[in-house]
Amino acid sequence: MTYQECIQACLECMEECNMCYDACLREDNVKMMADCIRLDRECADICAFAAKAMQSNSPFAGKICGLCAEICQACGDECAKHEHDHCQRCAEVCYKCAKVCREMAS
Amino acid sequence: MTYQECIQACLECMEECNMCYDACLREDNVKMMADCIRLDRECADICAFAAKAMQSNSPFAGKICGLCAEICQACGDECAKHEHDHCQRCAEVCYKCAKVCREMAS
Amino acid sequence: MTYQECIQACLECMEECNMCYDACLREDNVKMMADCIRLDRECADICAFAAKAMQSNSPFAGKICGLCAEICQACGDECAKHEHDHCQRCAEVCYKCAKVCREMAS
Amino acid sequence: MTYQECIQACLECMEECNMCYDACLREDNVKMMADCIRLDRECADICAFAAKAMQSNSPFAGKICGLCAEICQACGDECAKHEHDHCQRCAEVCYKCAKVCREMAS
Repeated sequence: MTYQECIQACLECMEECNMCYDACLREDNVKMMADCIRLDRECADICAFAAKAMQSNSPFAGKICGLCAEICQACGDECAKHEHDHCQRCAEVCYKCAKVCREMAS
Repeated sequence: MTYQECIQACLECMEECNMCYDACLREDNVKMMADCIRLDRECADICAFAAKAMQSNSPFAGKICGLCAEICQACGDECAKHEHDHCQRCAEVCYKCAKVCREMAS
Repeated sequence: MTYQECIQACLECMEECNMCYDACLREDNVKMMADCIRLDRECADICAFAAKAMQSNSPFAGKICGLCAEICQACGDECAKHEHDHCQRCAEVCYKCAKVCREMAS
Repeated sequence: MTYQECIQACLECMEECNMCYDACLREDNVKMMADCIRLDRECADICAFAAKAMQSNSPFAGKICGLCAEICQACGDECAKHEHDHCQRCAEVCYKCAKVCREMAS
């Protein structure tokens, strides 16, 4: 596992979460998506934070990846409950990023 | 107008927008609040960005405040449409921050 | 301990760290301040992140505060080594924020 | 010019700036790199902000890209003054991102 692989996973997850956030806000039933919207924002933001930490060689990169893994996992679990394509795609990318960040943190 | 007044306005606006974002996601009619949720996130984030720029003496602080003023104005205009207390409070703080940031930018 | 106290501590720490960052970059001996500059940036950014999480009622606010406490502690330890007024002031505010965030996390 | 090309340019620029920031802080002559460190942080952060805005379909994406273009240009101009490989690489990526963001903004 290299920093570069983990940065890549975080940047992909940031993108998918921000796109899912936008798509959820356009759905007919926004109320059903409220937790998804909330977690998408949080997950996108921690992924950007983790990427920055690794890119700039932060002494806290490992711990930040550990927290990122937990938030990605929670966001993936929420997205996986919804049938929309953007949620299913997002869940997949979140789970992948959670796995990679977990390895990085350990 | 000092940096300190403008930083204070940005941090208050960041707080009110993040609280309004959370409250909107808990409303019964989330769909009606979709634009408000979107602008609350964006406004909170640019306010944090502007505060950081002023606190760290960025050569771009003025231009960042100019952009912050525009986003605060748009967020205030959206919040002002809704009768919820959190939206009315947020609109007031956004308008104040827009005014202060506009002065800082000029 | 309320969210409001912890948010306040984080925003004060963000401000002091960003100001210390700027002041360190203006010192004659910048090389000696390299770790301080690095930690000031990281600490300011995680404090902003923690404030946002509490303001928006994130389910991860506690865990983010836990990480914030660790980074504040490290930043305070680095700042405390330097005699510059901005470093001494920053160390004090970092230690206070570390304490408050630790309580919030537990 | 598509959003996807501009997002890609912003994420590459964020990465190069964060890496240059880290490398500058490790140089023997840190004092000479002070402005580069400062602009690298600012440029990395606005690039992340612009990527987020485009990914989440923000109504302010164009204006944020306009500001991003100006900061990338300034960061590229500063990096171009230094002979270190990381600065030369960073300048090149900053100029490319400035160009792409300028087109997106117009």
